[in-house]
Amino acid sequence: MGGYRRLVVPGRFQPLHRGHLATVEYALSLSEEVIVVIGSAQESFTLKNPLTAGERFEMLDIAFREFLGRDYRSRVLIVPVMDIAMNKVWVQYLKMLLPPFDGVVSGNELVRLLFEDIGLVALTPKFYNREKCSGTRIRELVIKGSPEWRECVPDAVVEYLSRVGFEERLRRLASGEG
Amino acid sequence: MGGYRRLVVPGRFQPLHRGHLATVEYALSLSEEVIVVIGSAQESFTLKNPLTAGERFEMLDIAFREFLGRDYRSRVLIVPVMDIAMNKVWVQYLKMLLPPFDGVVSGNELVRLLFEDIGLVALTPKFYNREKCSGTRIRELVIKGSPEWRECVPDAVVEYLSRVGFEERLRRLASGEG
Amino acid sequence: MGGYRRLVVPGRFQPLHRGHLATVEYALSLSEEVIVVIGSAQESFTLKNPLTAGERFEMLDIAFREFLGRDYRSRVLIVPVMDIAMNKVWVQYLKMLLPPFDGVVSGNELVRLLFEDIGLVALTPKFYNREKCSGTRIRELVIKGSPEWRECVPDAVVEYLSRVGFEERLRRLASGEG
Amino acid sequence: MGGYRRLVVPGRFQPLHRGHLATVEYALSLSEEVIVVIGSAQESFTLKNPLTAGERFEMLDIAFREFLGRDYRSRVLIVPVMDIAMNKVWVQYLKMLLPPFDGVVSGNELVRLLFEDIGLVALTPKFYNREKCSGTRIRELVIKGSPEWRECVPDAVVEYLSRVGFEERLRRLASGEG
Amino acid sequence: MGGYRRLVVPGRFQPLHRGHLATVEYALSLSEEVIVVIGSAQESFTLKNPLTAGERFEMLDIAFREFLGRDYRSRVLIVPVMDIAMNKVWVQYLKMLLPPFDGVVSGNELVRLLFEDIGLVALTPKFYNREKCSGTRIRELVIKGSPEWRECVPDAVVEYLSRVGFEERLRRLASGEG
Amino acid sequence: MGGYRRLVVPGRFQPLHRGHLATVEYALSLSEEVIVVIGSAQESFTLKNPLTAGERFEMLDIAFREFLGRDYRSRVLIVPVMDIAMNKVWVQYLKMLLPPFDGVVSGNELVRLLFEDIGLVALTPKFYNREKCSGTRIRELVIKGSPEWRECVPDAVVEYLSRVGFEERLRRLASGEG
Repeated sequence: MGGYRRLVVPGRFQPLHRGHLATVEYALSLSEEVIVVIGSAQESFTLKNPLTAGERFEMLDIAFREFLGRDYRSRVLIVPVMDIAMNKVWVQYLKMLLPPFDGVVSGNELVRLLFEDIGLVALTPKFYNREKCSGTRIRELVIKGSPEWRECVPDAVVEYLSRVGFEERLRRLASGEG
Repeated sequence: MGGYRRLVVPGRFQPLHRGHLATVEYALSLSEEVIVVIGSAQESFTLKNPLTAGERFEMLDIAFREFLGRDYRSRVLIVPVMDIAMNKVWVQYLKMLLPPFDGVVSGNELVRLLFEDIGLVALTPKFYNREKCSGTRIRELVIKGSPEWRECVPDAVVEYLSRVGFEERLRRLASGEG
Repeated sequence: MGGYRRLVVPGRFQPLHRGHLATVEYALSLSEEVIVVIGSAQESFTLKNPLTAGERFEMLDIAFREFLGRDYRSRVLIVPVMDIAMNKVWVQYLKMLLPPFDGVVSGNELVRLLFEDIGLVALTPKFYNREKCSGTRIRELVIKGSPEWRECVPDAVVEYLSRVGFEERLRRLASGEG
Repeated sequence: MGGYRRLVVPGRFQPLHRGHLATVEYALSLSEEVIVVIGSAQESFTLKNPLTAGERFEMLDIAFREFLGRDYRSRVLIVPVMDIAMNKVWVQYLKMLLPPFDGVVSGNELVRLLFEDIGLVALTPKFYNREKCSGTRIRELVIKGSPEWRECVPDAVVEYLSRVGFEERLRRLASGEG
Repeated sequence: MGGYRRLVVPGRFQPLHRGHLATVEYALSLSEEVIVVIGSAQESFTLKNPLTAGERFEMLDIAFREFLGRDYRSRVLIVPVMDIAMNKVWVQYLKMLLPPFDGVVSGNELVRLLFEDIGLVALTPKFYNREKCSGTRIRELVIKGSPEWRECVPDAVVEYLSRVGFEERLRRLASGEG
Repeated sequence: MGGYRRLVVPGRFQPLHRGHLATVEYALSLSEEVIVVIGSAQESFTLKNPLTAGERFEMLDIAFREFLGRDYRSRVLIVPVMDIAMNKVWVQYLKMLLPPFDGVVSGNELVRLLFEDIGLVALTPKFYNREKCSGTRIRELVIKGSPEWRECVPDAVVEYLSRVGFEERLRRLASGEG
């Protein structure tokens, strides 16, 4: 453990991929507890945010159980958080909603800027292969019908996504009007 | 266990008292998992809602650890949820935010009406001594300066509340302008 | 007809009573078309607003059909409108949502003040027996269990309210926690 | 009639075109009543949504009167509805605002997905020539100054749009800053 | 001057009275600049908030010009600010909207608690005769028709309030329905 | 002076450039007072809106002091205003928030359309070199690392932007994830 009491790991998880798991593992190596924030919790059924926060919650639970162990909840909290229109108050908004935290682990510059802005810790995750496994690329592959996206996503998550009809939903959303 | 997969237990927990604990224990006797929803998560520093959602999150964690056991998280999720102005869509809003659930355990008629309204289970908690231990009465006692309120609240919670200055905050809020 | 093209009749209709019908008839005597605005459309399942906007829409349709005639829709539009937090812009907000109108018929001083404020017509309804037949009094009678409220409400509406469980809903809401 | 009590036909109607009329006629062939929902009712004076909901209301009234007959209102309700940021609760939100309905007729996949998601009927309109007559194409033609868009829009609507200065408004909005 | 660069003086100013002026003067004695925040800027035409933010802006300008001097603006900024539903983020929200400030001068305990909560200065104004001259009492006197309220309000403000019809508006609002 | 009592000059000021100063000077040549509205006040830390409203407030104060003179505040008010989702009510919303005004000076067609829509004055600023000095172009130059943007921005503003780390913030935001 790296000395922190709690670190936040925010993400949209549309869907969860191996990069997210690596980030959570990295955060766990640095702190006693990790709060995984499911961001944009109000969004769903869009090309950028196909899954509901509830579905993402269940998906994370399944994946963490497999990758972090059956008792992962002893050290990881999952909290869906809706967007707030004001970046400048976003971290204070998280402080309102969550147990006390020391900082954030995120690959997103905006997120790190906002945590730094109020004097908190802002860390960049280590092993983060963004080109291959980003949510954007996964959703594009699904829409194109390419099965390649499954390489970025743990089997248990692929199975969960199949159960909720992730691929069909995304393709229907992409077909738009007609 | 009583056959349900997941039940929701919503509350404002201003502050957590023995009635809440009994309700959660009752819900746990009926289902595999319980989602404790911290309601009105946007509220704090008011007479009716002195504590932030984050403080309530920590308070619940401390209390559940003591009363439900160290590994309580294996069966209990805590999720702060902000109010939505529309009662008729509130349960659908919870479905958007939370993993799938079968119904609710609540002493509140409005809550039960809304769950019944979309065909879900709505249960009344059993051992619920409302006259003595309601949040309203506790806050009134604190403002009056009567130490009696501590009978309704587990020692670990009293200690937590003392740490965050709950009594002083509530009394200052009650003193209003001046 | 009294020369106006369109007049607005706003109300919460919790529930519709004979005073509302008289107001709509009065407005119809003054203008070609009347827009009945179902106000606070976001509210429901509260003591002050037990019915949803959709239920109120159906209730108005049933009552108008009986009292104004089968083809009442040729001259009456029903539009649910959600509250906006800013009184000063409320009439402009109605102008955004509704076909053009000349003014309002309302027993409510605030409503008349706001229409006057931007130079529109603001009329007070004539035959308005408020002491006996107000929404507030009707809801109080229902909660007390007194059948007297039915004198203020057309039979077709009483029947509709019975069908959606209005009385039981209101009483359960009034019983609050427990 | 096709057995349904009420079907919803949502649209933005920026502006109304022949495809919309065909959809409403199709819905009327399947159900007793049709609720035409004017979506994104809060939007106006943008390139994508030049007309206010009130203008769209009047435009629909004029067009329906001509194409569905003088007494069209006996079977068609027009209701402006503001957007809600949460797709997952959108249909429940419509249930809150509108009289009871069985399902939707829409050429939009997202709309059909959301109605199916809570177990309602979701129908695709039949005779829908989208390439030629979509709102997007009409607005582009107007901005380019091509009169071709009038082929997609009934004469009575062209006249109404001329009266409210639709073309000039759209071109000024398109000219942006300067 | 008392060493601070900028202090905030928040108020609703419904209407401005001598207590407010004393507070602003006290704040000016302690800092180079004072930001007078017109709170609840979205409210108007209610019993508690009869005046719009724009009216309050003009009223403050008139009063400050008379009491603080023609060039008062060289040291006093007036900024209308709408409410935010979340107390815990309110001061951060002010930091987003306003030039940098060191703290607050306010007779309101909630306001002082929230500034202290994020480590800022929170001062209580000195000469503050609340019993006689509070906004609440002034509005009550106006509604009762007692001219006594004018003792609490500078002549220039009384004249301004007369010009915008403050007394009549408040009495009409108080008369409610009818 | 050109006869108006007050004119509004809205802008996002991301950042302030010489075109803005020319517009304010032009407005001052036409009216006794000018209200400079800092629009999209809720936005910050985005590519389109890097600065907070508070930073923009301070930046305008510094620039106006230098270009309009030490006592510029005697004739210029600066007011941050958050967006409202409804264009059709936007000017009424400004009327709610600001002291009375006669019209607007703006290079933006939407802004002028909305002021004209409720019968107010809408003027186009005279000396407005948009190609060279627009906010969009300035932000692009900053991201590219070209110092050319400084030609469009007064020295005092360049210095202020350097103090708050404008260039670094914008570049970090542009670098996005990683």
